[in-house]
Amino acid sequence: MKAPYLLYYWPGIQGRGELVRLALEEANAPYRDVAREPGGQGMKEMLGIIGGSSKGLLPFAPPFLVAGKLTIAQTANILQWLAPRHGLVPDDEASRLAAHQLQLTVADFLVEAHDTHHPVGSGLYYEDQKPESKRRSAGFVKERIPKYLGYFENVLARGGGKYAVKKRFTYVDLSLFQIVAGLTYAFPKATARQKKKHPLLFALHDRVAERPRINAYLPSPRRLPFNEHGIFRRYPELDL
Amino acid sequence: MKAPYLLYYWPGIQGRGELVRLALEEANAPYRDVAREPGGQGMKEMLGIIGGSSKGLLPFAPPFLVAGKLTIAQTANILQWLAPRHGLVPDDEASRLAAHQLQLTVADFLVEAHDTHHPVGSGLYYEDQKPESKRRSAGFVKERIPKYLGYFENVLARGGGKYAVKKRFTYVDLSLFQIVAGLTYAFPKATARQKKKHPLLFALHDRVAERPRINAYLPSPRRLPFNEHGIFRRYPELDL
Repeated sequence: MKAPYLLYYWPGIQGRGELVRLALEEANAPYRDVAREPGGQGMKEMLGIIGGSSKGLLPFAPPFLVAGKLTIAQTANILQWLAPRHGLVPDDEASRLAAHQLQLTVADFLVEAHDTHHPVGSGLYYEDQKPESKRRSAGFVKERIPKYLGYFENVLARGGGKYAVKKRFTYVDLSLFQIVAGLTYAFPKATARQKKKHPLLFALHDRVAERPRINAYLPSPRRLPFNEHGIFRRYPELDL
Repeated sequence: MKAPYLLYYWPGIQGRGELVRLALEEANAPYRDVAREPGGQGMKEMLGIIGGSSKGLLPFAPPFLVAGKLTIAQTANILQWLAPRHGLVPDDEASRLAAHQLQLTVADFLVEAHDTHHPVGSGLYYEDQKPESKRRSAGFVKERIPKYLGYFENVLARGGGKYAVKKRFTYVDLSLFQIVAGLTYAFPKATARQKKKHPLLFALHDRVAERPRINAYLPSPRRLPFNEHGIFRRYPELDL
């Protein structure tokens, strides 16, 4: 029996850690969600590693994954490393490059989704940047959501309609599921308007949700609910 | 003679393309900076590829690199692919993961540096978001610059002081050079205050600038000057 992966991420939010969780769950890979374990010891360990307590690579921020002697930080880096070990990406170079490129574009989108409620600074509360958030969200809803969703829709269409990479299910499809789920939570009105324009992407979301392991994971206590501390927050005043 | 790499990036700014140029220059790799070639044909080609004219991978945005049949987009993805082909990263898995993780952290920092002058939206002019830019820049200067530079300083210190990855020169060192150069241009006062606190990082910048090929590249016409259209812009009112 292999030792479980150790996933370290902020307890209480889905955040970027969720992209890793979805891959681990789909792969049926044994893992511990360390900082969420009762007692607080895991959280201490996580802060210790960020503070430099471990000899290996120093992560800038969670999530990071410990696998044997390796510490791997940055979500897209973790996924790129996990995927070939669990059949979540094809073997050929072009497919892996394409998958990683798409994953990095997902990462860019998450920054923009986060910054709708934190345009002035992550160190300030949302309540201290509400007017700026409204301005930023207006552009996000009007220009950025359509631009990104249109891009992903286009990628799906060019690949046959069902998957992001080479007509094969990959970890990128899990992240696209998460983007649609997050947008639907945070911007229900704006997202509803996007559904007709991007049928392939929304159909992909629904198909991913029905994959047996994801379908078992979503209602489980391992999946945290969306809330107003994460990347995707439901602030009705920003959903235009 | 191998066909040159084709680099596609916005003409007129260093931007993210510069991280790729620095690696290509250090590697002495033949490349064409296609969209900058006279006549405008290269620029048309670039927009065509983003618009979907090529059969391969669809880039979301420049920079992207065409190498034979491969199209590779996303700066960190390009660098990760180039580096082992040109001796810019060690062979072992841990080093490659560490390098890529650091490069993705550089990418995160560049988003934050850019958003100091575009906190409300990349679709608006700086002039239309000046008060918000001042607020965002205050936090950037006070908290984010020290946090990121402190992190990179720490990474250097843990690795012996000279290089970011395993006591070996890598493409990450070139990107750290670019961060210091960019900050020095855009935030000269704030950056001067950081110099004493982060001696390893600033010494790395100076050593990279003196590497023969980089030293030949920097004053060449291939290196665009910093200006007020790129990521690092000198707006004195934001340099606190």
